[in-house]
Amino acid sequence: MEKITSTQNAKVKKWQHLTTKKGHQKYHQYLVEGWHIVGDALTANEPVQTILATADQLEAHEDDLPATLEQIEISEEVAKKLTDTVTPQGIFAVVNITAATRVAPEDAAGAWLMLDRIQDPGNIGTMVRTADAAGFTGIVFGKGTSSRYNPKVVRAMQGSQFHVQLTEGDLTAWLTTFKGADKPVYGTALNKDAKNFRDVTASTEFGLIMGNEGQGMAPELMAETTDNLYIPIKGNAESLNVAIAAGVLMFQLNQ
Amino acid sequence: MEKITSTQNAKVKKWQHLTTKKGHQKYHQYLVEGWHIVGDALTANEPVQTILATADQLEAHEDDLPATLEQIEISEEVAKKLTDTVTPQGIFAVVNITAATRVAPEDAAGAWLMLDRIQDPGNIGTMVRTADAAGFTGIVFGKGTSSRYNPKVVRAMQGSQFHVQLTEGDLTAWLTTFKGADKPVYGTALNKDAKNFRDVTASTEFGLIMGNEGQGMAPELMAETTDNLYIPIKGNAESLNVAIAAGVLMFQLNQ
Repeated sequence: MEKITSTQNAKVKKWQHLTTKKGHQKYHQYLVEGWHIVGDALTANEPVQTILATADQLEAHEDDLPATLEQIEISEEVAKKLTDTVTPQGIFAVVNITAATRVAPEDAAGAWLMLDRIQDPGNIGTMVRTADAAGFTGIVFGKGTSSRYNPKVVRAMQGSQFHVQLTEGDLTAWLTTFKGADKPVYGTALNKDAKNFRDVTASTEFGLIMGNEGQGMAPELMAETTDNLYIPIKGNAESLNVAIAAGVLMFQLNQ
Repeated sequence: MEKITSTQNAKVKKWQHLTTKKGHQKYHQYLVEGWHIVGDALTANEPVQTILATADQLEAHEDDLPATLEQIEISEEVAKKLTDTVTPQGIFAVVNITAATRVAPEDAAGAWLMLDRIQDPGNIGTMVRTADAAGFTGIVFGKGTSSRYNPKVVRAMQGSQFHVQLTEGDLTAWLTTFKGADKPVYGTALNKDAKNFRDVTASTEFGLIMGNEGQGMAPELMAETTDNLYIPIKGNAESLNVAIAAGVLMFQLNQ
């Protein structure tokens, strides 16, 4: 097995690149970290190209790693170079970004969460995990939403990215296609003139759009939705965290 | 006005101490950071003892700060010493911890969220903010839950700590008192033998216990609740984030 101990090695430089947007575009690959996610990627038959792991991690997961899969042993120093966490988990997978990872709105069945310029990786990851738990089919990453290959987003999704469908997409096109197929698309608003979320009955085929943390949904999208929903706020809180609001709405809409 | 520019000043050492549990116990004071929270503390008539701020922040908030309140100008270096954030906001308040900040279970009206050994400051802060939005009266910090004076918890609550009642408390005593007063106390379980949360009708006086992120609720508490609730998980997600689960349950129970 190949061993890489120097952080100056050209492969290490490339792997570091796979944690950036430019690297994703150049190599059509991204990096996932930690056995929880690496193992889930393998189980889900994701296009894993290479496993990078410290000697300890290779030994711990010897029985789980397919022998046909390229494995490279890396030093602790190299592992530290590939992560922004304080305690690297010592195991990574290089995963290919394939054309198959893009879904067209006309092919989308079931319930879909649509993210309009969501910034915070933790919020995005939590929403993907919650969409998985609420039985949603997939999540559309609209323009301006942090990339699904961003290492912090990857980590926060905790493996749910391999249970649901994820795709980038133009939300206007998604909205138009869903409405054309008689599937409702719900927006979210802080405005009390919007529809109380408790007055919406659960269905199986619909879209739910969550908007930017500070600015909310884009007005041009909001104007085209079937209904815009609000969650009545009783106390003095100014707003709900977007991931909490998404959780409350997803479990209401998809019962 | 007193000016402190040296990070070696004895007062700076004391203020740093006010971000630790030992400091809270020794001085009965804690530190809050940022105008959002400092301003909310003043509006809520919290026992603010001193404002610490950089020249810029003092100028920006000159009209908002009561003239009778002790104000100390600090340098950017001192501000950096008092925070664990990358970009300090430059304004802090030293707030007294008074006996009035403890609530007895027999005096508790309305809906209460009870935290059983919740560890993550972000989860705690988000739950307090959501409880505020869902119209809960207060939150009990059970033994083993991160302190409500922990700087990360303080920051994540985003001012909601001044809109709802917060108290430390023994959850067994709270549970017993509520049940003795015929108020239901709901636990939370991942077990499908528990009660589907959608089958519980909303009421105005009750308790809801959320458990530790990894281990869930303590079994001895779970055995004493009125009902233990579960949120049906449809997908392959292993569990919901505790703050998301709390949000879904709070908006169901307190409509």
